[in-house]
Amino acid sequence: MNARESIEITEGGGVMTLPAGTLLALDSGGAVEHLEIAYRTYGLLNETRSNAILVCHALTLDQYVAGRNPATGKPGWWSSLVGLGLPLDPTRHFIICSNVVGGCMGSTGPSSPGPSGTPPGLAFPVITIADMVRAQALLVESLGIERLFAVVGGSMGGMQVLQWAADYPERLFAAVCIAAAARHSAQNIAFHEVGRQAIMADPDWRGGDYAAQGVRPEKGLAVARMAAHITYLSEAALQRKFGRELQRDGLSWGFDADFQVESYLRHQGASFVDRFDANSYLYITRAMDYFDLAGAHGGVLADAFRRARDVRFCVFSFTSDWLYPTPESRAIVRALNAAGARVSFLEIETDKGHDAFLLDEPVLRSALAGFMESAVQARGLEI
Amino acid sequence: MNARESIEITEGGGVMTLPAGTLLALDSGGAVEHLEIAYRTYGLLNETRSNAILVCHALTLDQYVAGRNPATGKPGWWSSLVGLGLPLDPTRHFIICSNVVGGCMGSTGPSSPGPSGTPPGLAFPVITIADMVRAQALLVESLGIERLFAVVGGSMGGMQVLQWAADYPERLFAAVCIAAAARHSAQNIAFHEVGRQAIMADPDWRGGDYAAQGVRPEKGLAVARMAAHITYLSEAALQRKFGRELQRDGLSWGFDADFQVESYLRHQGASFVDRFDANSYLYITRAMDYFDLAGAHGGVLADAFRRARDVRFCVFSFTSDWLYPTPESRAIVRALNAAGARVSFLEIETDKGHDAFLLDEPVLRSALAGFMESAVQARGLEI
Repeated sequence: MNARESIEITEGGGVMTLPAGTLLALDSGGAVEHLEIAYRTYGLLNETRSNAILVCHALTLDQYVAGRNPATGKPGWWSSLVGLGLPLDPTRHFIICSNVVGGCMGSTGPSSPGPSGTPPGLAFPVITIADMVRAQALLVESLGIERLFAVVGGSMGGMQVLQWAADYPERLFAAVCIAAAARHSAQNIAFHEVGRQAIMADPDWRGGDYAAQGVRPEKGLAVARMAAHITYLSEAALQRKFGRELQRDGLSWGFDADFQVESYLRHQGASFVDRFDANSYLYITRAMDYFDLAGAHGGVLADAFRRARDVRFCVFSFTSDWLYPTPESRAIVRALNAAGARVSFLEIETDKGHDAFLLDEPVLRSALAGFMESAVQARGLEI
Repeated sequence: MNARESIEITEGGGVMTLPAGTLLALDSGGAVEHLEIAYRTYGLLNETRSNAILVCHALTLDQYVAGRNPATGKPGWWSSLVGLGLPLDPTRHFIICSNVVGGCMGSTGPSSPGPSGTPPGLAFPVITIADMVRAQALLVESLGIERLFAVVGGSMGGMQVLQWAADYPERLFAAVCIAAAARHSAQNIAFHEVGRQAIMADPDWRGGDYAAQGVRPEKGLAVARMAAHITYLSEAALQRKFGRELQRDGLSWGFDADFQVESYLRHQGASFVDRFDANSYLYITRAMDYFDLAGAHGGVLADAFRRARDVRFCVFSFTSDWLYPTPESRAIVRALNAAGARVSFLEIETDKGHDAFLLDEPVLRSALAGFMESAVQARGLEI
């Protein structure tokens, strides 16, 4: 073991619970009682409480952004960007990541048993990206942090970053939005709707009451995941990885998985149902579909960022991302410029599709490192 | 009624049955017994039997290419191209369209009862595009036509056109391939696999035996159609048609169809199950996935067309078709050129996606009319 590897990263975390009688007010007009937000932290908060970075996770991810995920035994989902010597470095920053409200990794959601012991199912209120961010703001407050050094996220995480900038601009110094959009397009909604219909078509979904009835809509959830997974990759990446390669010599002349891409997709579906909850999938996709930051500001996206002109923004997109293609990021950048905010933008050339934000993408890593370093200097952080 | 409208188009059709004891030999090594091919004709065969055009249909379509579809009461699916004064004109050409083997509109398929009265379900052999074409060749023979003036098709119909050129080049004068590909890509296979998994996940599929058991996997088939339907449109078309428009004032804060695009997709799914059979969907998507014309010719696509250098080809693609994007058509054109065949190629600018081949697309109509006219002259057709 060399000197570098011997540095121990302090990990922490737990569950934030709101004081009795306190509610999380929701955009729908409803509220979440007995809110619990499960979170992890990496590194140490400095004395001035100025080095905290909140990482926002994507649709099916969790709070285990770095280190080792205890549920899977695998490295955290952003180990390419969060770690020693990486752009988000727990030896310099205090990195926080929490499971979104509505999720299924410890935060309150449609399948959390709650104090009564019975999961609410569809009685759980519909939540929005702004609700997720409101819960995160409570968590950040509870950790004694008045102002985050940065909020960083990709995909749905990027939507949360934009929402933070809109709702709490005074509580963040920098914002990094990767492979996201300021609103869900018709095609985005359409793909999500296919997934929801696949889940709700499964008789084991039981109108959302499956947990109480001891079953799980595994087949429907697997189909939903398969459809979504295609949208995370590019055609070029699928062709490069799989092409028309067969699973074995010759065709089966039947409906087994003949092609490697079929087998890969089936595996994606099957392994997903082991780690994710069907109702959370419904709720979180709904939150994404409802997301329309301009719509919430009179149709003018720049107006969402009027109060955020002191935040330093960095926006990334990927050339082959057809889920949130570059024009979506450009629209964000234009709105930030119109609002008078400081924004860096980089479109990264890759054939890996939307998934690139999760993969080891050297250009993303170095560009993000550069942005974070310049932000550290601008903030005068002593780290 | 003016003079033009008063011209009557002669329509014919019926079901071709093979003589007792004759089989349709299949690529799989199997065979279809008691083959029936349902077909329609429009117009009259001329004395020299030289004005016949075979139209090949796409995945979920049928033999009712023009006139009125008796099942739906609606105009035939290619009324924009087949009709009086249109590029395929039944007052000049004898137009034939047959339901593919494996289909569910009268031709033998997995859900045809057959002589025993019991639908074979998954005991029906897997078929290929070449098998479909072999059945069509038998039909054309049975109509006393030695050589077709043209074979025309879009999407899976275009695949059949290419297969005709590869297998029966001496039996056609011209070939028109619209919005197709010479092989299914990994992404094409992936989307089809999602649809198949959605069908097979439906407990009412019953291992393919649903017909015998008096049920139908309607929910699974609807989800399959919804997923596929997104691939037929472009993101731009979805955005233009639906954007984020709501079904009613305000959000439902639930899982009803809030957005018009959701409602549209649900309608597409629900109406599809009324007109299509789930097992046919499995078989026909499988045939498309297995399609790889180069693969069947030592990996060299040009070799598939070596015998077709006397056929006049016309290839069309659409700029916003992401299911069979223009590079797929260019690969066909390159191979045809390499084989020494005569080929016209046009990429048509449209935001309507793959679906453009079925819509009223003036540039397609006029370019196809021009190609057909030049072929009529080259052939010296007296019509």
